[in-house]
Amino acid sequence: MPTAEGLERLVEALRILPGVGPKSAQRMAYQLLQRDRAGADELAMSLQHALAAVRHCGKCNNFTEAGICSLCASPRRDATQLCVVETPADLAMVEQTSSFSGMYFVLMGRLSPLDGVGPRDIGLDRLLARATEGEVQEVILATNFTNEGEATAHYIAEMLRTRGVRVSRIARGVPLGGELEYVDAGTLSQALIERRSL
Amino acid sequence: MPTAEGLERLVEALRILPGVGPKSAQRMAYQLLQRDRAGADELAMSLQHALAAVRHCGKCNNFTEAGICSLCASPRRDATQLCVVETPADLAMVEQTSSFSGMYFVLMGRLSPLDGVGPRDIGLDRLLARATEGEVQEVILATNFTNEGEATAHYIAEMLRTRGVRVSRIARGVPLGGELEYVDAGTLSQALIERRSL
Repeated sequence: MPTAEGLERLVEALRILPGVGPKSAQRMAYQLLQRDRAGADELAMSLQHALAAVRHCGKCNNFTEAGICSLCASPRRDATQLCVVETPADLAMVEQTSSFSGMYFVLMGRLSPLDGVGPRDIGLDRLLARATEGEVQEVILATNFTNEGEATAHYIAEMLRTRGVRVSRIARGVPLGGELEYVDAGTLSQALIERRSL
Repeated sequence: MPTAEGLERLVEALRILPGVGPKSAQRMAYQLLQRDRAGADELAMSLQHALAAVRHCGKCNNFTEAGICSLCASPRRDATQLCVVETPADLAMVEQTSSFSGMYFVLMGRLSPLDGVGPRDIGLDRLLARATEGEVQEVILATNFTNEGEATAHYIAEMLRTRGVRVSRIARGVPLGGELEYVDAGTLSQALIERRSL
């Protein structure tokens, strides 16, 4: 089989992308070299630029190119509430609701002992310092309702409660527009347990 | 929402990869910046290296870093047979069978008028020159059995037959280990039509 070493190296490098196996890495490499060389060049340059310029906000741990991100630097945010999310995408989702005006802490992951992700890997030491430095009165846990997200929320809640910090968890229940017939039993049972009086 | 311009540019750049939408581009960017900066760096460098070094073989049109790829340069290949495939991956599959010792021509695509891919875009002018330059006695069409692959094979067959070149198409039929019960009707009907006497 005829080889092009540079091509093989590129296919190998593409496989570090999440969800990309050998076949799709190969398809990507062909596509880039055959049909979109300008795009490939831009991808290489934006990777290098991002690696050099993008770092973590000193307060919320989100990605930023400044020392403190614009959200943390804003005087209009309520510094007494601290919402903990797993990823920048989750932060963006919460922001989209326009129903939260507090600050954030982005874990950049979740506890996952099987993958070797422990408390320090998701910055829980920094979260602890941030939550106990004075201004924060309530920590709102908005990690995912997956097993790992729940375990992470539980761990953080324990960690903060022993230090006397007020901790809450966003509500579980039937989603807006959700039909009971199509909601899974776990969600429905939680919605019953956590019913609120009207 | 706090922005990191370099991050947004990277997410945008990742979207040129085939099959990558906005959500997965974002996930990829987070993964690269958060968990695999070395991999991201290697990806950027291998992209740049491949863009600079990888080109097309002057004979078979496959990717190579030399002027003529090692397969085309090999004296052990039978220059009287020319197998036409759509992609380098298809060439690799044919090579894996060890049942073909001729030469190849890689189209790097297929005719697709709706996507604006015409005969020149898949190098049919060069294929014609290659097939009629003397040594080649038979052109074997091994494009896919999709609509576009079939149309491409048909087009090439017409083009070459008018120049007096012998053209064949790899066989359609029930795959090895295939059970008639689970083979689609089109395949089965072709297998009946193209039956061979024993």
